[in-house]
Amino acid sequence: MTLALDKQELSDYLHEIFPPIRGDFAVERLEDMYVEMRLMVSDRHLRPGGTVSGPSMFALADVSVYAIILAMVGKKALAVTTNCSFDFMNKPAAGKDLIAKCTLLKLGRVLAVGDVLIYSEGEDSPVARSSMTYSIPQKPA
Amino acid sequence: MTLALDKQELSDYLHEIFPPIRGDFAVERLEDMYVEMRLMVSDRHLRPGGTVSGPSMFALADVSVYAIILAMVGKKALAVTTNCSFDFMNKPAAGKDLIAKCTLLKLGRVLAVGDVLIYSEGEDSPVARSSMTYSIPQKPA
Amino acid sequence: MTLALDKQELSDYLHEIFPPIRGDFAVERLEDMYVEMRLMVSDRHLRPGGTVSGPSMFALADVSVYAIILAMVGKKALAVTTNCSFDFMNKPAAGKDLIAKCTLLKLGRVLAVGDVLIYSEGEDSPVARSSMTYSIPQKPA
Amino acid sequence: MTLALDKQELSDYLHEIFPPIRGDFAVERLEDMYVEMRLMVSDRHLRPGGTVSGPSMFALADVSVYAIILAMVGKKALAVTTNCSFDFMNKPAAGKDLIAKCTLLKLGRVLAVGDVLIYSEGEDSPVARSSMTYSIPQKPA
Repeated sequence: MTLALDKQELSDYLHEIFPPIRGDFAVERLEDMYVEMRLMVSDRHLRPGGTVSGPSMFALADVSVYAIILAMVGKKALAVTTNCSFDFMNKPAAGKDLIAKCTLLKLGRVLAVGDVLIYSEGEDSPVARSSMTYSIPQKPA
Repeated sequence: MTLALDKQELSDYLHEIFPPIRGDFAVERLEDMYVEMRLMVSDRHLRPGGTVSGPSMFALADVSVYAIILAMVGKKALAVTTNCSFDFMNKPAAGKDLIAKCTLLKLGRVLAVGDVLIYSEGEDSPVARSSMTYSIPQKPA
Repeated sequence: MTLALDKQELSDYLHEIFPPIRGDFAVERLEDMYVEMRLMVSDRHLRPGGTVSGPSMFALADVSVYAIILAMVGKKALAVTTNCSFDFMNKPAAGKDLIAKCTLLKLGRVLAVGDVLIYSEGEDSPVARSSMTYSIPQKPA
Repeated sequence: MTLALDKQELSDYLHEIFPPIRGDFAVERLEDMYVEMRLMVSDRHLRPGGTVSGPSMFALADVSVYAIILAMVGKKALAVTTNCSFDFMNKPAAGKDLIAKCTLLKLGRVLAVGDVLIYSEGEDSPVARSSMTYSIPQKPA
């Protein structure tokens, strides 16, 4: 398969369908079945102790898998998350953005599965790993 | 085991350690190894389409398991989430709060595991299921 | 919804499509959206140390969710597991069968989700928890 | 960190502690924090339809994560699986061995997390993805 959207088209479309994304997430890199997304960490993403909260990491993984599906299948703003698993492995570094490296492992007719490793920018060890399954709505007959 | 905190003590302590919780979450019911938490749904919990967002449901499940661990072991604000799984099964009903029914399945010396079913208030079918593992920090020797 | 198969029909059909099941698994109880399955533990289910192996517990959870889907939708031997999560919480008791208590949380047109608690027979605390998603093949047009 | 065991030592030790492994699994490649394991597929690993069964894939993922932990920490046959997630994405090819490519993402004092992609030998798309958490027993004081 090949990309249906390029990096700029993907970025514009994400901003169009999810206005709150602007200011939170940015597409860093886009390849066939692979995307890197940045979470621009600000105070509202933190939890007591100063590290990035679980829900913010969940949002980053979720938007990353959604973005790579969109980039592959084009402008169909309809896929929904049906399942996710998450391993939280290390505390994110304070004061650094998070970078999600997301590989689309499967892009089927009905289900898509993405795998995500999340890093504090510039660090070698991942802070979290996630996989997400999206259900792709079937066209009515 | 028996509860270390009652419902009021748990609620007060959650507000003390996580001030942002006030206005978002409320302890509805507390029993041995079991808690029900309410997410008071407002605009900031919604995603395009008007239903509650994935990150908001994640936050609800996470705070529920954290709350029942606290209620069982007392005021030790230290457990951290190490793993979660989530099944998103139905779209939350618009304009209704979410209720998490959380059972603590295991409370070990090192790990605790909670299972959560999330409902739109008053509905019979769950909108989501989650399990969360917390690691309980060991006392230094 | 109501059951499409009763306990005897379900048991017979499982034996017909999965002959190896005979001698390993038995349907203990069947209700609307709920089944209990027994793993008749023998030497081949054990791992070093004498407790039931992970793969044997996986097989028990998997066959339980498969069985309750069959019981609800009838003889369509086609659903496939697409996802599972597992929490192993306690060591199974030596010399006891395992009982899986399986609730079908969702039975959709495309996906079904079951939740399973596994107990050593007669014990109060579960040894494991699992959720399984099955994909239900769509009829060709 | 560096490897505590080399490929031959790891292979010998796995055979010593899990005699049934001989004939089922083989260490194909071992690097720092990374192992490849082969499941030598035979009739007892198949399910109706002729593809490799879920429990056999579970066993392959589980032994892979166990093996890389052993290779890193040395001969301590004690770690136990506490959690796993699995995505089954494609049907394994008939008549081919399975190869698990396993990366140890975290090796902490208490928990270790491994990520596994499973392939039919020689194929490009993975048939399954799994992550496994092991708990590493603490020395008594």
